Amino acid sequence: MTSERRGVVLLSGGLDSAVVLAMARSEGYAMYALTIGYGQRHSQELIAARRVAEALHAERQIVVNLDLRQWGGSALTGSDTVPINRDTAEMGVDIPITYVPGRNTIFLSTAMAWAETLGTGEVFIGAHIHDYSGYPDCRPDYFQAFERMADLATRTGVEGQTRFSIHAPLLKMNKTEIVRTGARLHVPFELTSSCYQPTADLRACGVCDSCILRLRAFAEAGVHDPISYVGGTSHP
Amino acid sequence: MTSERRGVVLLSGGLDSAVVLAMARSEGYAMYALTIGYGQRHSQELIAARRVAEALHAERQIVVNLDLRQWGGSALTGSDTVPINRDTAEMGVDIPITYVPGRNTIFLSTAMAWAETLGTGEVFIGAHIHDYSGYPDCRPDYFQAFERMADLATRTGVEGQTRFSIHAPLLKMNKTEIVRTGARLHVPFELTSSCYQPTADLRACGVCDSCILRLRAFAEAGVHDPISYVGGTSHP
Repeated sequence: MTSERRGVVLLSGGLDSAVVLAMARSEGYAMYALTIGYGQRHSQELIAARRVAEALHAERQIVVNLDLRQWGGSALTGSDTVPINRDTAEMGVDIPITYVPGRNTIFLSTAMAWAETLGTGEVFIGAHIHDYSGYPDCRPDYFQAFERMADLATRTGVEGQTRFSIHAPLLKMNKTEIVRTGARLHVPFELTSSCYQPTADLRACGVCDSCILRLRAFAEAGVHDPISYVGGTSHP
Repeated sequence: MTSERRGVVLLSGGLDSAVVLAMARSEGYAMYALTIGYGQRHSQELIAARRVAEALHAERQIVVNLDLRQWGGSALTGSDTVPINRDTAEMGVDIPITYVPGRNTIFLSTAMAWAETLGTGEVFIGAHIHDYSGYPDCRPDYFQAFERMADLATRTGVEGQTRFSIHAPLLKMNKTEIVRTGARLHVPFELTSSCYQPTADLRACGVCDSCILRLRAFAEAGVHDPISYVGGTSHP
């Protein structure tokens, strides 16, 4: 074991998880950034995740590829399924990518595995109030149940130590509060990627759900959004 | 929802999960076979999984690729890590592939996700007494904690129903009992793959840990092992 406090953060390349990484760093954690790569993910999100990890001095960043295209392509065909294809979001339908069944559990399990190998049980996730209100796997009682499971899943847990802990510091924040927190911690907003349908030269569209949420939050927070939008303004 | 009883089985292509699939089928479940493909996995295991799924009349079989090579290649470099590289097992060192930290949690999470989309909470896994004695994430209290977590992770759970259930019917069996059970249920043993280091023409080596366990179990069960071994005999 090391004396440094280590944490694993699920880092997407978006705004929220960048703020979480900055929060953990500001508390003195040595941070390990885990980015999940999957089929529908735009490559600029993976690039953004790497740049954010570097800018916020993560000890290491890795990308683990999970073949979630498989789910969308052939598995999720039952009548009781929900669409997970990014195309749906791209068409402007209000179905965030987070509607993948089991998504947080798969992501947190992967983070748990890496954390165990790093000798820590501290895992950070950027779930926020918008998720919290909509999805079962963003609620405090879910996170607590995951912690109990994780304690039993790991060697240390079996040895009687309860130590696995999920940190979701944005859980009660709205997007505006997240932007304010990020600004205070000097999060490199210019490196983060939010748009569902960026242009070829990586400008954000400014009109998809994700862009609208982002633009509104920066405007309400009174913070300049440094990324480039089609049309050129961050304050429409 | 459908009136048929559906189950998801983690199907590896090996002996144990094939027996579990046969047990679930014999209980009347319509079965969906989930095979996790990862870097160290020999392709004949994936072929075996598909053939076993077909022979035992699974409704569907899918392969989900998880990039666990990433863990072995660059992530698991801390001093407190355990080797997961299949090469280690292939060199005859007694480190089963199941020593991947968080492996069962990641696999069960993936199965949980598919099960939810299929409208069921019944998941089957081939963990047996050898695992049970060695690994934290094969113990009954771990499985129970996973079930509680999964109930909260899913929509149905939030609606107050407790319905997620992990079936590990081999958990108290040794390998000999597993072979006897499989023989009784007419498991197509000839399609299963156990060897860590098969020859180019897919004969089992007969000397790796996995072959030795398999051969001993068939011998003790008094059952003929129909797969081909280097040297030609299933009863060394």
